[in-house]
Amino acid sequence: MTSPAPVVLVFLDPTFPGGRLADASQPQLMVTDQGATRGDGVFETMLAVGGNVRKVQAHLDRLAGSADALDLVIPGQDEWRRAIATALSEHRVQNPPEAGAGDRDELVVKLVVTRGVEGATAPNCWVQVSPVGAGARRQRETGIDVILLDRGYDSDAAERAPWLLLGAKTLSYAVNMAALRHAHKQGADDVIFISSDGRVLEGPTSTVLLAHVEKADDGTSVKRLITPQLDSGILPGTSQGALFTAAKAAGWELGYGPLEPQDLLDADAVWLISSVRLLAPVNHIDGKQVGTPSVQKELTAELNELFAGIQ
Amino acid sequence: MTSPAPVVLVFLDPTFPGGRLADASQPQLMVTDQGATRGDGVFETMLAVGGNVRKVQAHLDRLAGSADALDLVIPGQDEWRRAIATALSEHRVQNPPEAGAGDRDELVVKLVVTRGVEGATAPNCWVQVSPVGAGARRQRETGIDVILLDRGYDSDAAERAPWLLLGAKTLSYAVNMAALRHAHKQGADDVIFISSDGRVLEGPTSTVLLAHVEKADDGTSVKRLITPQLDSGILPGTSQGALFTAAKAAGWELGYGPLEPQDLLDADAVWLISSVRLLAPVNHIDGKQVGTPSVQKELTAELNELFAGIQ
Repeated sequence: MTSPAPVVLVFLDPTFPGGRLADASQPQLMVTDQGATRGDGVFETMLAVGGNVRKVQAHLDRLAGSADALDLVIPGQDEWRRAIATALSEHRVQNPPEAGAGDRDELVVKLVVTRGVEGATAPNCWVQVSPVGAGARRQRETGIDVILLDRGYDSDAAERAPWLLLGAKTLSYAVNMAALRHAHKQGADDVIFISSDGRVLEGPTSTVLLAHVEKADDGTSVKRLITPQLDSGILPGTSQGALFTAAKAAGWELGYGPLEPQDLLDADAVWLISSVRLLAPVNHIDGKQVGTPSVQKELTAELNELFAGIQ
Repeated sequence: MTSPAPVVLVFLDPTFPGGRLADASQPQLMVTDQGATRGDGVFETMLAVGGNVRKVQAHLDRLAGSADALDLVIPGQDEWRRAIATALSEHRVQNPPEAGAGDRDELVVKLVVTRGVEGATAPNCWVQVSPVGAGARRQRETGIDVILLDRGYDSDAAERAPWLLLGAKTLSYAVNMAALRHAHKQGADDVIFISSDGRVLEGPTSTVLLAHVEKADDGTSVKRLITPQLDSGILPGTSQGALFTAAKAAGWELGYGPLEPQDLLDADAVWLISSVRLLAPVNHIDGKQVGTPSVQKELTAELNELFAGIQ
């Protein structure tokens, strides 16, 4: 067992305006917390680069939406921002960044809300800061192989059955983790979920993007970035949202599904995008090569550059 | 906030053959435990009556099956049994039962397995013992009103997509809890999930049972106990299984689905059965009265008596 990476932990606590620092190497959670006994809570995972959390407003907004879907009344965004600042600053004290680390000074900032123990009057909320895993960094570079897996739901389920919490980022991720293990057993890195009616949905921890490049008659090229439509029961991707805004400003056309598996195979490039791993180019889907390697490489570089400008 | 009920906590720990007692009133879980951060684990909830856990073998077998579905390698059943005995005996020391309490001496015994912190070589396993809530006892007597809610999955999903973990009792219960909150907001007590193709599935924390009584030509009556078929993606109910065995021995006929919502309304009685609340008679479904009150009462008494004989 490798010793776990150092984690800085800050609980949101009304008696500590900046949050309450706690020792993450010691148990800090009751075994009866409903986050642990029922996966009953919500979370966000963000990336801090050089001490600044990217897209923090989008993440705080999505956290609020998830909490609302679960009838959890959570602290205000200012309180979260102060706790995040406390955690990042404490992490810097404990682990001074190397001089000139620049963009390599990356940290994962996780926000967690649980319903607390049975009968609790307020949820249990914390911020944890830890290093970025080597796997995430590697997959940005090398790309990934994915398999398509049935998510069981049809693409109308989210609309007609809000209790399925399909648009909320809950702590109940056992199925997402099982799907990833299933992929790893087959030698793949990741999964793209398909609805029971054959629509492309999302990855277990990421949003699906694809791109088409079309040469116009005048020799210029039109680039189009496409993602599955939100009302199919997927999580709204904060990275996808930010990248779409940046790509539009840079002259890309944007498109929204419905998408079918064949659309992935017909694309010039496919990515899974998420807040920490960022853009992971998809090399193979169910063993079939995706897109054109040279085009994929070029588009990935262009989108990475656009994404790097996002605050 | 009412002070939480006293909980006795015993961790399974190779260095403590009978399990390691821990103070449940103090934090004992890391915030980075994947049980808390991803609902990544499995559990069982059992009832101990007069110090004896009912159907302990069936629960341990189901726990092993759930763990297997999640690729969790858990301690052997003997180790669980010893930890359960330690927890029950400690609970008795802390809370001596009243003289003559008899069957009222009921305790909830919960077994929990989480994947532990990232990189852990073994899962985190514990037993917790606590009193039975007043609500569960009351609903056995008064019965419950339920609403039907779409579970999103069709009845073939479990067979074709094992990564959905439909037959495993995982810690990822956020949807089950959301469905119950949805019912409570509508003035109902509980939920019966329906598959997207219209089959009766199960309750969020219980198994569905229904009964028919038919008078034969010779004046005798034939009683039939029916439950949805397992391959529709429901959790195998330990209480349903034990009650079916006892009912068969007592001369009942047994039946297995597929069942549709109309079958519930056409039944002479419907129950939700689970290990702690036991048989909860269903009085109304979506506001419609179910069965015949006098028949329901009689059958409930008869099944309760059969169930009381189960070890």
